[in-house]
Amino acid sequence: MPKIYIVGIGPGSYEQMTIKAARTLELCDVIVGYHVYTDLVMPHYPDKEYLSTPMTKEADRCRMCFEEAMKGKTVAIICSGDAGVYGMAELMLGIGRDYPDVLLETVCGVTAAVSGAALLGAPLIQDFAVISLSDRLTPWEKIEKRIRAAAQADMVICLYNPSSRARHDYLQRACDLILGFTSGETVCGIAENIGRAGESCSLHTLRELRDIPVNMFSTVFIGNSQTCIINGKMVTPRGYRL
Amino acid sequence: MPKIYIVGIGPGSYEQMTIKAARTLELCDVIVGYHVYTDLVMPHYPDKEYLSTPMTKEADRCRMCFEEAMKGKTVAIICSGDAGVYGMAELMLGIGRDYPDVLLETVCGVTAAVSGAALLGAPLIQDFAVISLSDRLTPWEKIEKRIRAAAQADMVICLYNPSSRARHDYLQRACDLILGFTSGETVCGIAENIGRAGESCSLHTLRELRDIPVNMFSTVFIGNSQTCIINGKMVTPRGYRL
Repeated sequence: MPKIYIVGIGPGSYEQMTIKAARTLELCDVIVGYHVYTDLVMPHYPDKEYLSTPMTKEADRCRMCFEEAMKGKTVAIICSGDAGVYGMAELMLGIGRDYPDVLLETVCGVTAAVSGAALLGAPLIQDFAVISLSDRLTPWEKIEKRIRAAAQADMVICLYNPSSRARHDYLQRACDLILGFTSGETVCGIAENIGRAGESCSLHTLRELRDIPVNMFSTVFIGNSQTCIINGKMVTPRGYRL
Repeated sequence: MPKIYIVGIGPGSYEQMTIKAARTLELCDVIVGYHVYTDLVMPHYPDKEYLSTPMTKEADRCRMCFEEAMKGKTVAIICSGDAGVYGMAELMLGIGRDYPDVLLETVCGVTAAVSGAALLGAPLIQDFAVISLSDRLTPWEKIEKRIRAAAQADMVICLYNPSSRARHDYLQRACDLILGFTSGETVCGIAENIGRAGESCSLHTLRELRDIPVNMFSTVFIGNSQTCIINGKMVTPRGYRL
């Protein structure tokens, strides 16, 4: 039976892939993905066939996988982080209805909320919300509502896709919403290029964060009212007595 | 300089560890962890020294790591999933203030929200909240507030620690809160024993979920208003046009 693996490659470095993801890519004939991600794995799997489509052509990319699988090839479609968090898993399952003979298996990866948190310290140790600021597929009003809800319930917030060329002020707008519920001194962090060249992280107050430029390779963390800095790390206490 | 690695081992199977986690455990002298987790890795690293403390003795477990490191041993403390999501990373950083000569490094793992989502389909493809129902360290009122906030903002909700012997009706209470904001037909899922013996998952309506017994090895997913079932899988559409 033709089979496609939907593989999360983690933040970017080979070492941060799961053993299962690495073994899966090894056994595949074709690796499909956005070029930024195929470029990351290609040095480790130089003998594979690689296929790609531009951004916004995600559905075409998925159909390409099924077409290759129907030719008898074993296919992996790769996503950065995990395929189930703003990744391709849903689109693959949806398009899979048109290819009932193709088996799908998702192979997990470490999503940016988790890898970025480890770089910064331990910001997500307590209840948190993961929200994407991209309004390409979600109305901005819905995003605003979710930001407000998370902030008023004092949840840590992890923001994916905090900015892009067309949405340069979205992080500012998100910060202004959150400032309606919490202190401008709230501890925040940015993780950039996690697991890749140029990996870095930085800590800021919420008031500072609103004016800091970020890009599509940044993941932003906004602490809850308890989040503090311990030895230069962003830490949300769980409540243990030490 | 003495060093301790804070390692997330993922859901449980060796293959779902990251390559970095596997290499880190290989190079350590001592592996410290709750016995359920040390039992999982022991067959793969039989020659290591293992140390443990019972549940509720987490701070003692952490101090044990620092004491071993000060003896000159390389130490790993392991958590299931990721150490930064309801794990030991925060406690280690906090206690680390008393041991300024010990270096700490967090090695990421796949947390149950991600691994459970992959088993069930793709429920977390859109904005979501991760909330623990354990009130051992968080007042129940705060947990309720967060559940309400996430539900009213139509976020997918992933519940950790949905039940225990002392808290057998907490999932029911959470479902009743969410039923105040959304349909009883909302698609929900339970992932159990992810990556371990007895791994299973099941789909339910929200109305059904409230009466289903779960345990401390269950992770519960409550869909948003768009979440649907595709070929037996729980899928939250992101909004792509197919």
